[in-house]
Amino acid sequence: ETTDIIHYIPYNAAMSPKITVELLRQLRQAMRNTKYIAEPIQAYIVPSGDAHQSEYIAPCDCRREFICGFNGSAGTAIVTEKHAAMWTDGRYFLQASQQMDNNWTLMKMGLKETLSQEDWLISVLPENSTVGVDPWIIAADQWKNMSKALASAGHSLVAVQDNLIDAIWMDRPTRPSTQLLTLGLGFTGLTWQDKMTALRSKMAERKISWFVATALDEIAWLFNLRGSDIEYNPVFFAYAIVGMNTIRLFMDIKRLAVPTVREHLQLDTPSKVELSIQTAPYESVFTELQAVCASLGPKEKVWISDKASCALTQVIPKAHRSPIPYTPLCLAKAVKNATEIQGMKMAHIKDAVALCELFAWLEKEIPKGTVTEISAADKAEELRSQQKDFVGLSFPSISSVGPNGAIIHYRPLPETNRTLSLNEIYLLDSGAQYIDGTTDVTRTMHFGSPSAYEKETFTYVLKGHIAVSAAIFPNGTKGHLLDSFARQALWESGLDYLHGTGHGVGCFLNVHEGPCGISYKTFADEPLEAGMIVSDEPGYYEDGLFGIRIENVVLVVPTKPKYNYRNKGSLTFEPLTLVPIQAKMVNTDLLTQKERDWVNEYHRQCRETIGAELERQGRKEAMDWLIRETQPIA
Amino acid sequence: ETTDIIHYIPYNAAMSPKITVELLRQLRQAMRNTKYIAEPIQAYIVPSGDAHQSEYIAPCDCRREFICGFNGSAGTAIVTEKHAAMWTDGRYFLQASQQMDNNWTLMKMGLKETLSQEDWLISVLPENSTVGVDPWIIAADQWKNMSKALASAGHSLVAVQDNLIDAIWMDRPTRPSTQLLTLGLGFTGLTWQDKMTALRSKMAERKISWFVATALDEIAWLFNLRGSDIEYNPVFFAYAIVGMNTIRLFMDIKRLAVPTVREHLQLDTPSKVELSIQTAPYESVFTELQAVCASLGPKEKVWISDKASCALTQVIPKAHRSPIPYTPLCLAKAVKNATEIQGMKMAHIKDAVALCELFAWLEKEIPKGTVTEISAADKAEELRSQQKDFVGLSFPSISSVGPNGAIIHYRPLPETNRTLSLNEIYLLDSGAQYIDGTTDVTRTMHFGSPSAYEKETFTYVLKGHIAVSAAIFPNGTKGHLLDSFARQALWESGLDYLHGTGHGVGCFLNVHEGPCGISYKTFADEPLEAGMIVSDEPGYYEDGLFGIRIENVVLVVPTKPKYNYRNKGSLTFEPLTLVPIQAKMVNTDLLTQKERDWVNEYHRQCRETIGAELERQGRKEAMDWLIRETQPIA
Repeated sequence: ETTDIIHYIPYNAAMSPKITVELLRQLRQAMRNTKYIAEPIQAYIVPSGDAHQSEYIAPCDCRREFICGFNGSAGTAIVTEKHAAMWTDGRYFLQASQQMDNNWTLMKMGLKETLSQEDWLISVLPENSTVGVDPWIIAADQWKNMSKALASAGHSLVAVQDNLIDAIWMDRPTRPSTQLLTLGLGFTGLTWQDKMTALRSKMAERKISWFVATALDEIAWLFNLRGSDIEYNPVFFAYAIVGMNTIRLFMDIKRLAVPTVREHLQLDTPSKVELSIQTAPYESVFTELQAVCASLGPKEKVWISDKASCALTQVIPKAHRSPIPYTPLCLAKAVKNATEIQGMKMAHIKDAVALCELFAWLEKEIPKGTVTEISAADKAEELRSQQKDFVGLSFPSISSVGPNGAIIHYRPLPETNRTLSLNEIYLLDSGAQYIDGTTDVTRTMHFGSPSAYEKETFTYVLKGHIAVSAAIFPNGTKGHLLDSFARQALWESGLDYLHGTGHGVGCFLNVHEGPCGISYKTFADEPLEAGMIVSDEPGYYEDGLFGIRIENVVLVVPTKPKYNYRNKGSLTFEPLTLVPIQAKMVNTDLLTQKERDWVNEYHRQCRETIGAELERQGRKEAMDWLIRETQPIA
Repeated sequence: ETTDIIHYIPYNAAMSPKITVELLRQLRQAMRNTKYIAEPIQAYIVPSGDAHQSEYIAPCDCRREFICGFNGSAGTAIVTEKHAAMWTDGRYFLQASQQMDNNWTLMKMGLKETLSQEDWLISVLPENSTVGVDPWIIAADQWKNMSKALASAGHSLVAVQDNLIDAIWMDRPTRPSTQLLTLGLGFTGLTWQDKMTALRSKMAERKISWFVATALDEIAWLFNLRGSDIEYNPVFFAYAIVGMNTIRLFMDIKRLAVPTVREHLQLDTPSKVELSIQTAPYESVFTELQAVCASLGPKEKVWISDKASCALTQVIPKAHRSPIPYTPLCLAKAVKNATEIQGMKMAHIKDAVALCELFAWLEKEIPKGTVTEISAADKAEELRSQQKDFVGLSFPSISSVGPNGAIIHYRPLPETNRTLSLNEIYLLDSGAQYIDGTTDVTRTMHFGSPSAYEKETFTYVLKGHIAVSAAIFPNGTKGHLLDSFARQALWESGLDYLHGTGHGVGCFLNVHEGPCGISYKTFADEPLEAGMIVSDEPGYYEDGLFGIRIENVVLVVPTKPKYNYRNKGSLTFEPLTLVPIQAKMVNTDLLTQKERDWVNEYHRQCRETIGAELERQGRKEAMDWLIRETQPIA
């Protein structure tokens, strides 16, 4: 699945807007209610996102959707006494305009004439206004920028501790508190105690006294625990504060009553005093962090992610605060250990078995005209769920036929659901969570006869995929330097795709994770290192016709080319995904011999590794399909 | 010539340090002298650089060298009552340690244990200290950072208007005031009035009332004037302030007494009132900008480069200041017009004639054992100087034999001067200023029999050069996305080079200019556009043995590949440099057919275009050499 899309996605679902008259009346009342704030506020900002800056959020955190009706992944709503406006980007212009009623003004980000949130506020607010926001769901740096801009125009930004949306949201879902899963050494390779010791040695190295963990996947990774509080992401709501002799874990205390969890965390019988975990309710992180900060020595420093919430960040006095773009947990988590790599390999084998079965089944079923985007995705899920240690999907499947394939973040809906046929390209971007690993794979197939143009563009995408996968590069190279390898063949023919080429992938964790990636956008990515796992997913999208994407999850591995300049060492990628790439879609004349060799070697690996597992599982039809689809190309 | 080098350069010149006891005594006296400052200061910062942030500086601006003896291109000296320290990077550790006496502490930047300037000051200063700096030679953002860091430790940074180095520098050279050259439409393609109108329309577009020009090449370009105040850079010391109806030009008034200059600038007979130039002395820019700012309306904004001096930047009240990374002049100057492109082509033809002559001459002379790095560079200059409209070199020639070639920014000195031979690789990176254009070309040659390893690495560098030169990419692509194309072949063999791949090149202006470039460092480069001119110069350096670099200056041109995705259009490069690439150094087995075709087509162009000019100039030996060196390779 791609992350950073700047593609303008046509939104083709018919839908009626949410009626918000009454909600806005209630919100404006709350903005004047001294129960929540000492003085009335003249504007209230409703960002998307939760207190942990999660990419996917739980239903109880969908506050922006609740107030305006727009349910896209990015958008900020602002309500003043007279106006209501919602900012989103080009992907969502159509969708937002259909989902919001006329109480709302759609602010189209990226267009020249669109005011920024700050400038708009300044243009509509009366003099000396107060703007409120929930400090838990605004990041510290966003707070700073907004606060500065408002101050320069004589207004002020204030933190409203009670969320005003929650105050008017009658049937707001409760925060999920799902059962926790404890992961043993066989899955994690390191005990949580090992990870804690490694974290503390990083802290000692940088003379840091405390570390505040706020990202849910980092906390899950640190404690070798998983939950299912957020769909597709095996995480749970928690915070942690780690000192050199102290560990504080904040979460719904009920979850810690389970004996396996108590034992896993050694809550009753800690092995050492510095590995004894003090647990406290989720909400108490604020006061506990205050207490920690109150006892800080003059030179003591506290690490916190620069993406953490304003509320928690500001608890730490500035002189003691050491904000970091990537926490030590984020960096440690990105480099998978041998056990995690083995688990990821196992997960990808099981995933490939399910996909081979799916494609063999599709070949049989499509001619009957009964398979749709939704039923194909459901079948894929069903087949995956038969595999050992399956937990769930790792993101909503992108199952798209023909023109729907050109919508990069398409999700089939009953209104848009197309039938798979022998005439149109089918693109399936899907993945699963298994206890041993996370998968994410895209295959683009034609079940009839692809046109010359479809084959040509598919082949350019394949050339790009191979160029990244087979790239050799020095240790210390950042992923963004590899992005143009994926585009070279397309560029030579005047083509391109408007998304990044790859993202980090967690191990039975989030399918998108930092700090590495492969993108033309030069975000502050960390250099690639052996053991990191990323996706390699170039594509090509012809609006109104078809979409092509070829995605493998690949492991960064050391390699030894002929020379070794300055003893730096070299890296390359090893595909973890082992699902045949449809040879029918390839115009082999456009491939170099090296590229043909790569395809044949890749298919040999698929046949060998997945073949053995299909054999073991006795899945004969899929086996026949695999054998046929992995014939060497000439 | 490469720009951003992080290579550690061995410095092999024997030299004795500058004795600075007396100078430091005088400087410390000045730091307490109320003639210069109201209160004594406890530290004084001496940056390198001039008031215009020039890359090359005039002798009168070499203040850091004067005080400490170190004459490398990058370094900052700080003197306190008791200490003297100088910060420089890995290129210069050895050189600086040899050039500075033991009154100075060398602060090795890039090493973990080295304190930053701020931290060092905080560690050595007594409480409540005052640190001084000349606000004209520190950039506004550097001032801000330093000031903040010092304030956080209870110290303060103050602007010392009289430069304290100048105060103690007895035989300080005067600021150059060379004769100005006026350039007509035949060289510039646009009158300065046209450029002024275009600038003002950019200002109007962004609602900007005033623009302060501080970069010397931008001022030279704007007024179609050239000088020779700084070696290798045809610029002159000046400032300009442009309003919608006003033009103020600040420079040594004597230079404006020349009738051709007066006429060119229409000083006596301005065509329109808004194109009438008010001239004033160089130094008066400060008070004039103060006067402009005093009369600003409440919403009026002033554009100034974010790299401009602290002194000028702070004259503009913050509410009116609009700092920009690239000024409209920088952006306009980068996209060459048809006349400039024609001029650059002419300059490159003349330059190639001189180099063909040089290489033919070297072939004859080297066997005699009489040609050295210095004499070869001198011969190149002599041959260039015979060409029409030659002005001078565009940078000091890098003329290097064998191991000296591995020192990326090597300049031959009598102590290091090697003799060219049949046994070692010769690398010549050189260029010239002609009135019609600026050149910069590197060729690496072997006059005997190169080893298999030398040929192999040369061929990888050539493959990288071709990969960039022949790249096709969408409009709007930033240069840094092309950098890895240049490295791909080297990377595949475990090799690399530690400098960027290309820099912008001025037209009869600085050989290094922004805002575009091709580098793995993702500085804020602007997208490549048709008409931009950059260098393409990958290399390979084997310490102690040899250096290889192949550099052409290339023009960004539109191209029409098979498709045109979203009507974005595509770009590629056209080589302006037309000097044969030595086929003897190429292992043709390592080239693809496409690469062989590129070499042959490039050599065909060299033969056709340079051959015609050699013919015209009657330079027979060079012609024979050209014909032989441009035989097609198989």
